[in-house]
Amino acid sequence: MFKHLSLYQRLNVMSLKDKLAWRFATKKFDPSKKLSEEQLNELLETVRLAPSSYGLQHYKILVIKDPEVKAKLREAAYGQAQLTHSSHVIVFAAETGIGEDYVKNYVDEIAKVRNVERDNLAGFEKVIMGVVDQLAEDQKTVWAQKQAYIALGVLLTAAAEMGIDACPMEGFDAAKFNEILGLKEKGLTATVIAPIGFRTEDDPYIKAAKVRKPHKDLFITV
Amino acid sequence: MFKHLSLYQRLNVMSLKDKLAWRFATKKFDPSKKLSEEQLNELLETVRLAPSSYGLQHYKILVIKDPEVKAKLREAAYGQAQLTHSSHVIVFAAETGIGEDYVKNYVDEIAKVRNVERDNLAGFEKVIMGVVDQLAEDQKTVWAQKQAYIALGVLLTAAAEMGIDACPMEGFDAAKFNEILGLKEKGLTATVIAPIGFRTEDDPYIKAAKVRKPHKDLFITV
Repeated sequence: MFKHLSLYQRLNVMSLKDKLAWRFATKKFDPSKKLSEEQLNELLETVRLAPSSYGLQHYKILVIKDPEVKAKLREAAYGQAQLTHSSHVIVFAAETGIGEDYVKNYVDEIAKVRNVERDNLAGFEKVIMGVVDQLAEDQKTVWAQKQAYIALGVLLTAAAEMGIDACPMEGFDAAKFNEILGLKEKGLTATVIAPIGFRTEDDPYIKAAKVRKPHKDLFITV
Repeated sequence: MFKHLSLYQRLNVMSLKDKLAWRFATKKFDPSKKLSEEQLNELLETVRLAPSSYGLQHYKILVIKDPEVKAKLREAAYGQAQLTHSSHVIVFAAETGIGEDYVKNYVDEIAKVRNVERDNLAGFEKVIMGVVDQLAEDQKTVWAQKQAYIALGVLLTAAAEMGIDACPMEGFDAAKFNEILGLKEKGLTATVIAPIGFRTEDDPYIKAAKVRKPHKDLFITV
């Protein structure tokens, strides 16, 4: 399909569904191909809009370009070449210390952005704190991590839409990532990563048929 | 921006970033507006392509249209009107019983779809089982739930891309959802939901400025 068109043209006539079929967990990135500043910004600005529970965005997103840091992360990811051959490594790091201060700052921000009285948001703040206070520390972190996975879903979709390759990965040593990136001191923990860049045409997985559950096995209609 | 264009035209000249800015957690759905079969299929087929760890897709996706079931779910979601006013309620339900059989079936499916010898996939199967066996039962469920959140991220992005409204929600009683939908017997647990449909123009949140962390507070460049 679309074989007579350039990649650029193909991406413009393809539906989002076709683009998600085009993407795959890239194993062999072309080390010579880097995202332009414009591409990187467009991608990150899209991910910045990812929804999260109450809009809390309880994570930070590290954008790693430094070759030395990437080499260290590769070691902490069982040597997988995507870490160094990709253009950038995106690390989603969940907030570990969600509490009163974090929520207060967030509600302050809403008051500012929406130009509303801070007092009018007291009820909303109380609702969020009700949820936060119910959770044990480790549950809070899992909650934050789940939000990071939404952002990962947005990143992978937006990258595919832009013709950018990515490889979502859970196979890395989170404790070592935290150490290399100084995340613990920042109240963060490495959750999931995605090297991004551009495929080499000889990546053996390009031609492998995509395996997904058939419609009838994935969806239940009620 | 784009005010002189119809919604359809706007959606066609808008970037994915603009479309994610257009979307919001819709509170007031128009009960008279339903997704066409074509829209629903396109959306679901896009979500079917969502990536997951090793491609396991350890969840099912319930697509709920039945008004009586929606009414029951509304009660189990603290009476929130999105449950009945939306066109469909999407329930992401994580697999709770990931084990040898689940993985074996998945690897069988790969062999079939890619037409490769089953024996050649034994190493891959072993890798997955190594990960599965390391996890306690509740950790397996959290792992599956995280994958469901990727699919949620894809759904919300794809819906925005198509001009369909959605409201991601964690505020519901999962145990009651499991009971109403008979999920426990299916080895599933309700994880996160998203009513989908079309906004009413008087939804008070349409005009509310979107609150997102500024670029410098969300991203860390290394």
